[in-house]
Amino acid sequence: MRAEDRGTGVILYDYLGSGNGYKIRLLLAQLARSFRWVELDIMTGQTRTPAFLAKNLNGRIPTLELDDGTCLAESDAILWYLAEGSAFLPENRLARAQVLQWMFFEQYSHEPYVATPRFILRFLPNDSPRRSELPERLERGRAALSVMDEHLRTRQYFVEERYSIADIALYAYTHVADEAQLDLTPYPSIRAWLARVAGQPRYVPLMRRPD
Amino acid sequence: MRAEDRGTGVILYDYLGSGNGYKIRLLLAQLARSFRWVELDIMTGQTRTPAFLAKNLNGRIPTLELDDGTCLAESDAILWYLAEGSAFLPENRLARAQVLQWMFFEQYSHEPYVATPRFILRFLPNDSPRRSELPERLERGRAALSVMDEHLRTRQYFVEERYSIADIALYAYTHVADEAQLDLTPYPSIRAWLARVAGQPRYVPLMRRPD
Repeated sequence: MRAEDRGTGVILYDYLGSGNGYKIRLLLAQLARSFRWVELDIMTGQTRTPAFLAKNLNGRIPTLELDDGTCLAESDAILWYLAEGSAFLPENRLARAQVLQWMFFEQYSHEPYVATPRFILRFLPNDSPRRSELPERLERGRAALSVMDEHLRTRQYFVEERYSIADIALYAYTHVADEAQLDLTPYPSIRAWLARVAGQPRYVPLMRRPD
Repeated sequence: MRAEDRGTGVILYDYLGSGNGYKIRLLLAQLARSFRWVELDIMTGQTRTPAFLAKNLNGRIPTLELDDGTCLAESDAILWYLAEGSAFLPENRLARAQVLQWMFFEQYSHEPYVATPRFILRFLPNDSPRRSELPERLERGRAALSVMDEHLRTRQYFVEERYSIADIALYAYTHVADEAQLDLTPYPSIRAWLARVAGQPRYVPLMRRPD
């Protein structure tokens, strides 16, 4: 990745298991951009220190720090910033708005019901009281997957029949839906699309630690 | 508004009490763009009919229908589409990403904890079991308001010291936070910003039915 560095140095504050962080790692790899990777342990409050809150008032990873020290938060806003001018973001005005439509769908109708159950099941103790949230969250997760599957029934990718950051945003947690106890068997169009995304050039898997 | 129509006809599917729908009404008024307004009753399933699901698979308002029948969903994506090329969306790459950062913050960290409590309190029966969600939602709502207040402590607007769709997105539910039993007294920077937004040219209030 570093051999073909086309950008100046950015720092990605991240957590390896985070799908939101993975979105940025995947795009940076596909852009062949080097970056400095700083892992913060979200389980021990490393994103709530005064030093990190000075970078992101909302205390969350991923956060991207630019050359001049400016920090940008929210995974899908970071994707947009990095993809601007590349093949991963269409130029057409309507298509760009459709990319945003699917990214807002991801954050509002998908992430809380796919990523959060995965977090509860994978990162919290077996006796966590948050397990009581699972049935309702998973019901909404299945509703989000149904919307995606129906959209993909006649399409290869989410927008303009080309791979874009809308696909990256939705892929991040969908491809590990089984870790949230969400079975993808009933969603054949999603499964075919996941394979297309995983077949993209310079693809990297979620749990691969950056160099 | 219609006298200064600068755009072709669009149709806004909406619900008067919706802050997400209000975002679009406010921007269209400020752009002096005419539109056809179609109200759907979200309380009686009018957004879940086959006819409406054909426009938006996710079955939600606001949805914007363009001249050619293409439909765009997600309030903040619609704001982006309409604001492109206007004074309400900065041109600078970083500033545009910062607008998105605040819009994703709004949908992920603010709307479920400010808009949803307002919905439970204002639109559901007094004995709704969903009232049990209020304490946790309001705690997170106050966390979101604290982030906003701290950001605005040294600023007039959210991005680049100019009024943009980031302000519209966050204003929609913040200015009716009292309807969610969220008291804005502890947030003086938010209160000053709300007054600045309400003082913008061509401002329209939430509950004003479009012509």
